[in-house]
Amino acid sequence: MAARIALDVMGGDQAPDATLRGALLACAANNPRRLAPERVLLVGDEAVIRAKLAELGASTPFPIQHASQVIGMAENPAMSLRSKPDSSIAVCVGTVKKGAAGGIVSMGNTGAVVGAATLGLGTLEGVRRPAISVTLAMTGKPVTVLDMGANREAKPQDLVQFASMGSVYMRDCIGVESPRVGLLNIGSEPSKGTDLLKEAYPLLEAQKERLQFIGNVEPNDLFQSAVDVVVTDGFTGNIVLKLMEGFSAFMLQAMMKELSAHQATWAKEALGNLRRKIDYAEYGGALLLGVKGVVVKGHGRSDATAVANALIVAARTVDSHINEHIIEGLKAQAV
Amino acid sequence: MAARIALDVMGGDQAPDATLRGALLACAANNPRRLAPERVLLVGDEAVIRAKLAELGASTPFPIQHASQVIGMAENPAMSLRSKPDSSIAVCVGTVKKGAAGGIVSMGNTGAVVGAATLGLGTLEGVRRPAISVTLAMTGKPVTVLDMGANREAKPQDLVQFASMGSVYMRDCIGVESPRVGLLNIGSEPSKGTDLLKEAYPLLEAQKERLQFIGNVEPNDLFQSAVDVVVTDGFTGNIVLKLMEGFSAFMLQAMMKELSAHQATWAKEALGNLRRKIDYAEYGGALLLGVKGVVVKGHGRSDATAVANALIVAARTVDSHINEHIIEGLKAQAV
Repeated sequence: MAARIALDVMGGDQAPDATLRGALLACAANNPRRLAPERVLLVGDEAVIRAKLAELGASTPFPIQHASQVIGMAENPAMSLRSKPDSSIAVCVGTVKKGAAGGIVSMGNTGAVVGAATLGLGTLEGVRRPAISVTLAMTGKPVTVLDMGANREAKPQDLVQFASMGSVYMRDCIGVESPRVGLLNIGSEPSKGTDLLKEAYPLLEAQKERLQFIGNVEPNDLFQSAVDVVVTDGFTGNIVLKLMEGFSAFMLQAMMKELSAHQATWAKEALGNLRRKIDYAEYGGALLLGVKGVVVKGHGRSDATAVANALIVAARTVDSHINEHIIEGLKAQAV
Repeated sequence: MAARIALDVMGGDQAPDATLRGALLACAANNPRRLAPERVLLVGDEAVIRAKLAELGASTPFPIQHASQVIGMAENPAMSLRSKPDSSIAVCVGTVKKGAAGGIVSMGNTGAVVGAATLGLGTLEGVRRPAISVTLAMTGKPVTVLDMGANREAKPQDLVQFASMGSVYMRDCIGVESPRVGLLNIGSEPSKGTDLLKEAYPLLEAQKERLQFIGNVEPNDLFQSAVDVVVTDGFTGNIVLKLMEGFSAFMLQAMMKELSAHQATWAKEALGNLRRKIDYAEYGGALLLGVKGVVVKGHGRSDATAVANALIVAARTVDSHINEHIIEGLKAQAV
C-alpha cells in the first residue's frame, strides 16, 4: 500500500471543520486526483473527529490516530512542543517516525510544525539545513522559492543545497525537466548583493553539470516565468513571502474599493479569480524539504480546497521518492 | 533667495522631454505648490535644453548650467563617473558642492547618482552611512522606509541612525509630529530575525527619549498605517522595493486581463486610480539622506508629474533645513 499522509486535523484557523472537509474533498469520487481514504490518517481528538464527521454526514473509512492535545496558532513553538508531547502536531511527526505514515499535512502553528519535524524526523543524509519551499503559481508557470523561513540565516553552501533540493522537487513533483535556478539578488551582475550571495554565486556556477544555474535574479523575475527555482536565505525569503501576502491583500482590497461604486457582480468575480491565482495554496502550501519524511505546511487560514490540495501534493511528493533523489543529488554535488 | 534645485535634465527613460515638462509643471501658475522658475537650475546639454524648451513653446526664465556628457541608464556607475567627469549627474553634484544649489533631482542612473552624491558631497557630520529613503503613500498615510538600497549591508548602529534620519524627515518634511519607528523583521518578538536585528533592537529601545520605537514590524505592517518609519538594511530594503514594483505591475496587468473582457471604461479608470495610489512618485521618489545636500532620485520611468513632484519635494526638503536637524539628532543620540 502507498504510504499514508498524516493530517493534523486540529491545526489551522478553521480546524477541524476545514481540515475534515479537506480530507473528504481529497477523496471525493469526482476529484480526478483523488486519494484512497485509507491513505489519509486523521490525527487529533478522536471524539471531536468522529462527531464532526457524523455532522458532515460522512461515512468515509478514514483511519484515525488519537492525539489528546492541541498547540494553538499563537503559542510559542518551542515551549508548546515541550509542554504538549501528545499534541496533534507531535503525534503526526511520530507516525512518520514510526513508519506508519510517509508524510504530514498541517495548517497549524508554523514554528511548531517546522520544529517538531526537524527535531523529530532529523535531516536527510547530507542535508545541512532543511528549507521551507513555496511554489508560486500566479503567472500560470510555477516557480519554487526556498528558503521561505526555516532558517534565520544561511551559509553559501546552504544556498547551493537549497538549489539542489528545489530542482529535484520541480523535476520530480512539478514535472519541469531541467529547472532553471536563480539566486535572489538586487541586481544581475555576480558582484551584486551581500557577501553571502557573492560567495554563493561561484559555488552555484561550479555545479553547472548538475544544476541549470542562470545567475542572479531580481524580485521582478518571480512574475516573468524566467526562472523555475529561486534560492534565498530564510530571512529574505520570509520577508518576500510576507510582503507578497500583505501587498496582495492590500491591492485586492483597494481594487475592491475602486470597483465597489459600480456594484458590478462580474467585477467581484474578476477579483475572486485574481485572488485564487495569487494564492499559493493551489500548490498545497509550503514544503519542508530536507527532513526524513514529507512535510507540507499549509496556511493557517486554509479552507477545505487548500487542505485537499495539500494532501494531494503530500501524497504525490511521497510517491515521487523525492527524498531519495535529494540524497543522490547532494552526494553528486558534494559541497 | 531660497536655494536652487539642480535638475538633471538628461536623466531618465523619457529625458529630456519628461524632465523639462516636469520643470514647467513644477512652476506652472495653476500649481498651488509651485516653485519660482529661478529656483530650478536646468543641468544638461544647453543646446538640447533650449531647443526642447522652444519646441514646448516655453519662455520660462530657468537658469541653465551646461553639461556636455550624459551617463546612460544601464552604464556601470563607477566606470561612467570616472570616464565622464562632465556628465549632467556630476555637474548637478558640483553645483551643490559649490553652493550654487541646495539640492539635486535626477531620474538617471541610480548607482551613478548615489555614488556621485556620496563621494562628491560627503556625509553629514556624525553620519556613518547615507541611506535611500522612500515614502510610500498608498494607504493614504505615508510611511517612510529606509535604507532602500544605498548600502549592501548594515551594522546595528547604522539602523539606529536610519531611524533617526527617517524620523527627522517624517517630522520636518511630511509633518508627522512624533513618528513611530519600526524595525522590519519576520516576527514581532525581540528575539526574531538575524543577528543584525537582534543587536539593533536594544540599541533602538535605548533611544526611547529621542525616538518613538514601537518594536519589530512585519512586511504586512507597511499596509496598515501602524508605523511611520520602517528601518531595514539596504539589501532587504531593495528587495522590498523591487518586489513591490514587480508585484504591483503583475497584479495590475492580471487585473486588467480579468476586467478587459467587459470593456468597461470605468474599470480601466479604477485601475488607473490604483496605479497612481501605489506609485511612490507621489512623494517625489527616493531621498538620499545623510549627505551634505538634498538628493532626490526619481524612478527612471518618471513622467512630467513625477518630475514636478520630485522638484517640489526637493525644494521643501531644502527649505526645512532637514540636514541641520539630522546632525542635531545624531549628536543627541550618540551611538
